[in-house]
Amino acid sequence: MMQIEFKIIEKFFTKNNIKAYKGIGDDAALFKKDDNNLWAISTDTLNENVHFITNTDPYKIGWKAMAVNVSDILAMGASPMFALLAISMPKPNNDWLKQFSKGLFECCKEFNVELIGGDTSRGPLSINVTVLGDVKKNSVLLRSNAKIEDDIWVTGDLGLAALGLKIIKKKIEAPTVITKKSIQALEKPKLNQFTIDKIKSFCNAAIDISDGFVADLSHILKASKVGASVHLKDIPINKWIKKAGQENLALYGGDDYQTILTASKKMRSKIEKLIHKDNLHLSRVGIITKDKKLLISDNGKEIKLKKGFTHFEKK
Amino acid sequence: MMQIEFKIIEKFFTKNNIKAYKGIGDDAALFKKDDNNLWAISTDTLNENVHFITNTDPYKIGWKAMAVNVSDILAMGASPMFALLAISMPKPNNDWLKQFSKGLFECCKEFNVELIGGDTSRGPLSINVTVLGDVKKNSVLLRSNAKIEDDIWVTGDLGLAALGLKIIKKKIEAPTVITKKSIQALEKPKLNQFTIDKIKSFCNAAIDISDGFVADLSHILKASKVGASVHLKDIPINKWIKKAGQENLALYGGDDYQTILTASKKMRSKIEKLIHKDNLHLSRVGIITKDKKLLISDNGKEIKLKKGFTHFEKK
Repeated sequence: MMQIEFKIIEKFFTKNNIKAYKGIGDDAALFKKDDNNLWAISTDTLNENVHFITNTDPYKIGWKAMAVNVSDILAMGASPMFALLAISMPKPNNDWLKQFSKGLFECCKEFNVELIGGDTSRGPLSINVTVLGDVKKNSVLLRSNAKIEDDIWVTGDLGLAALGLKIIKKKIEAPTVITKKSIQALEKPKLNQFTIDKIKSFCNAAIDISDGFVADLSHILKASKVGASVHLKDIPINKWIKKAGQENLALYGGDDYQTILTASKKMRSKIEKLIHKDNLHLSRVGIITKDKKLLISDNGKEIKLKKGFTHFEKK
Repeated sequence: MMQIEFKIIEKFFTKNNIKAYKGIGDDAALFKKDDNNLWAISTDTLNENVHFITNTDPYKIGWKAMAVNVSDILAMGASPMFALLAISMPKPNNDWLKQFSKGLFECCKEFNVELIGGDTSRGPLSINVTVLGDVKKNSVLLRSNAKIEDDIWVTGDLGLAALGLKIIKKKIEAPTVITKKSIQALEKPKLNQFTIDKIKSFCNAAIDISDGFVADLSHILKASKVGASVHLKDIPINKWIKKAGQENLALYGGDDYQTILTASKKMRSKIEKLIHKDNLHLSRVGIITKDKKLLISDNGKEIKLKKGFTHFEKK
């Protein structure tokens, strides 16, 4: 949920960790569970007028507040288990809370998460959720573990949530089916736990797409000190979005909550077999390169990326 | 940090827990660490204009945001270990963040806590912290474990933080020394980890005082299905507060972050020896009773408590 202009804040809160296995800097922090397993823990806040607009269906806010954290846990290769909720609201509103908790608990049920703690305060409407999950130490998916020549895989379709936001803001019009689908993607993102669980043991690195494909892939590249070469045509983009020339929604639009994974080329045939066998919605979009640069090409021609997304040398 | 009017919210978020050792309803939730130990986890939010006034020294906000969660962990008998921070602010402010993180990390250092995760968002100023600690299963201090005839113990002095808030709001005047001390108690609460660690193995139940002595003791009584008889003269109240006739600040004022503990009468002599040996700031204020009622007496005469604090039958 990190806003780009807020990256500076990382510098104030990142210290060397001694007791933790992995501190700030990935989708979730990691600490020891037992000799073979780690706990993954992630926290995310949704604020009114920033992460959702006023009068959004509270059921959907509840669902999404849980889902965005579950997404972080899944992107570590972990299985979500426990959650805590800290909610601020101007005054108690029973109808709102009833719908909100319904959405939250339905998401908990879907991902087998148990809500174990809560805090309620007065304040501007804000929902913070913390989720804990567990993962085998040898199958944890770190941002920093992408290897040169790894295939880059992406779950689901990209750009729908960003399209949904544009439609709500009346900045674009789309056919009814697309409108419904994209607002659904924005307000109640589908997570691909099944897909991730199927292939995670073959993967090296992963990140969930909350800031947008380009931004989040660049987080992997920076952390792994590598680059990537991606083909625009292979990025899973809804046909209507392509036809409307709105590919940028898939490249830079946030809130997809799909997952980017990297896996050795040697695993490609195994993954492709699973795609067919289990009908996985998974696309191979490119390859990790030695050159610390993100190159996205369209019919062999390099696309000029938005400022700040081309080079990933450590500053 | 639960506001009284928000108690109703509990009903929306409390479900039976299967995987957790203890869910919503105590200072922290508990889940298995290993065969003999539990993890305790707590989350609390501080909002501008609710939990701190605008222009409060960010160093102190940082310190307090961590301390109120550490306090919850200590009140479970646990040792704090890891923390996550989720901060919302209208726009990045380096000077503010520098001071805030200084306060936060100084508190982390004092209580041996490692910050392992963070999230930053745009929104009204709000700080959420989650703290994890560990505790031996057989020495965990639950609200629900107070036994009839247990002694009731309280750490430190009560009412100073509430006095500090009154002074800041110019609703009361106090001598300089008291003013300084009470504003310090409000803005940078001292936690009594040393005292709690010394006596916790002799105790049955505990809670930290965030809502006020009467409210928090009543949480123990409700959860343990017991009552209490307390002597006003034994409650540790600053002399000036007593002289000013402001005992209500100690009874109902929040934000003390002292701790109420209960322990069998059989442990009294052991605890008293420790008080003398280690110079603990610890007061014995009363006794747990069978009658589900909180009775506070002043020279043998029952004090009329504020509405809602007398009877604790389960509704």
